[in-house]
Amino acid sequence: MLQVAIIGFGNIGKCAYEAVKNAPDMELVCIAEMSDFVDIPADLKSIREKDFKNIQAHSDIDIAIIGAPSRACPDIAETLLNMGICTVDSYDIHTNIWEVKCRLDEVAKKSGAKSIISAGWDPGSDSIIRALMTAMSPQGITYTNFGPGMSMGHSVAAKAINGVENALSITIPAGAGVHKRMVYVQLKSGVSVEKVTQLIKADPYFSHDETHVIQVNNINEMLDVGHGVNITRKGVSSNTHNQLLEYSHKINGPAVTAQILVGAARAVVKQSPGCYTLIEIPVIDMLPGDKENLIKQLV
Amino acid sequence: MLQVAIIGFGNIGKCAYEAVKNAPDMELVCIAEMSDFVDIPADLKSIREKDFKNIQAHSDIDIAIIGAPSRACPDIAETLLNMGICTVDSYDIHTNIWEVKCRLDEVAKKSGAKSIISAGWDPGSDSIIRALMTAMSPQGITYTNFGPGMSMGHSVAAKAINGVENALSITIPAGAGVHKRMVYVQLKSGVSVEKVTQLIKADPYFSHDETHVIQVNNINEMLDVGHGVNITRKGVSSNTHNQLLEYSHKINGPAVTAQILVGAARAVVKQSPGCYTLIEIPVIDMLPGDKENLIKQLV
Repeated sequence: MLQVAIIGFGNIGKCAYEAVKNAPDMELVCIAEMSDFVDIPADLKSIREKDFKNIQAHSDIDIAIIGAPSRACPDIAETLLNMGICTVDSYDIHTNIWEVKCRLDEVAKKSGAKSIISAGWDPGSDSIIRALMTAMSPQGITYTNFGPGMSMGHSVAAKAINGVENALSITIPAGAGVHKRMVYVQLKSGVSVEKVTQLIKADPYFSHDETHVIQVNNINEMLDVGHGVNITRKGVSSNTHNQLLEYSHKINGPAVTAQILVGAARAVVKQSPGCYTLIEIPVIDMLPGDKENLIKQLV
Repeated sequence: MLQVAIIGFGNIGKCAYEAVKNAPDMELVCIAEMSDFVDIPADLKSIREKDFKNIQAHSDIDIAIIGAPSRACPDIAETLLNMGICTVDSYDIHTNIWEVKCRLDEVAKKSGAKSIISAGWDPGSDSIIRALMTAMSPQGITYTNFGPGMSMGHSVAAKAINGVENALSITIPAGAGVHKRMVYVQLKSGVSVEKVTQLIKADPYFSHDETHVIQVNNINEMLDVGHGVNITRKGVSSNTHNQLLEYSHKINGPAVTAQILVGAARAVVKQSPGCYTLIEIPVIDMLPGDKENLIKQLV
């Protein structure tokens, strides 16, 4: 049994807890959550640490599943890798993935540990789909269309605008990888929706997309973590044009992210020391059970 | 540059020839085709061998792409692996893949060569999709729906029926992994379509599926190698039910198979000695170019 720790008990951490419980080859031996305002189930209280650096006190941890906000992931992973603990996270700041990989790769190779970063659905499983489609039709165009669904980043950005009490930004696919933003705002008293609309539309998170701001009374009544994606590639295989490839899903974001993290946790221990993204990992490594059955069932 | 040989110059071999020409990192150094009835382009005549066992005469071959019928692939692969040449094929007899893998794995490990088998679209890229969907939602049901498109195996089986001059079997998806067979037959003179229909419906290739036999004058006027697939999985991620995952493509069968074989050829040299299926290979290994660019573009 793989000895697993979960770092952070928010949306992702809670789902990872369920996914680890369902995994036939894993045992949850520690959860680390520093906040006292997070509800920890009674059966986990005895294995809870406030400081993630103390997780080794509970057992010889094989893997830590990091369910922290993306910006915090690289530092947490670095600390754990230095302690010789393998890590997986769903770091999703696309523009920095290569740099984070290089940084953690060096640390991991020094300590002999292993890490998989950006193992959610995008980046993550969608990355595998895009890479596979590119291998199938090397010449062509891929479009990744997100939504409809809640964008965490955009919602946080809208919430940070002056006068906004609470906000929800829904990503609507407008086709060909272009997206529309529907931003629902709950305003502080005396604030005008016109002023807030102006500020949101000027924010770098929204200024490049068609953005609609709509005032509502209660954001919490609208919250739904369901999300979707549609990835298409039209391209050329051999010398044949018009090859049409398409992938889509309608999922609960945190649930699928946590499940992919659990798969990555299973895979990471099978790799050589270093830091990887999911497209560098054989998909079979993410699955429990013996190779013979998996190949007979899935190939 | 990888030195590549193509074994067999039929549908797959011809497309592999185009795909290798388009590959920035490969050089075609030999084609092996034993039949004199196959048209070989003029520029390939000087690198043509009749017997695939002589391909090393042309260069130090890194990889042989085997475009032979499935039943012939394992023996050809074994011979080449024994010579220390890496092989890839699109062996598609699903029920025997594990046995072929074990047999070639032993040979490859002895000679230090590497092999990827069953690297077409199904088995092949579809296998990666099924494995990935299972990792995303470990509990649930996957349906693979083929078509509409020509089934080579069923067409050959229909053609082998007494009284049939030529035949074309089209696979029609009937949903939930069930398929309907539309069998177009061109009959020898004096043969009754009723008798042929009876024989086809009794054949083990057709007896389990709803099968319709239709007499036509000229099969060649109907030939089209376009094919399709639709793979769906509805399952559970973490504890969340009703996760909906879907993949589909509309492609030219031989063209995409050849392109996947070229990707597998690129990947195979990067593995340790042994025999693999595509789900055991990191997808990034199938792509040309440096890791940094690939990760920045695709992850």
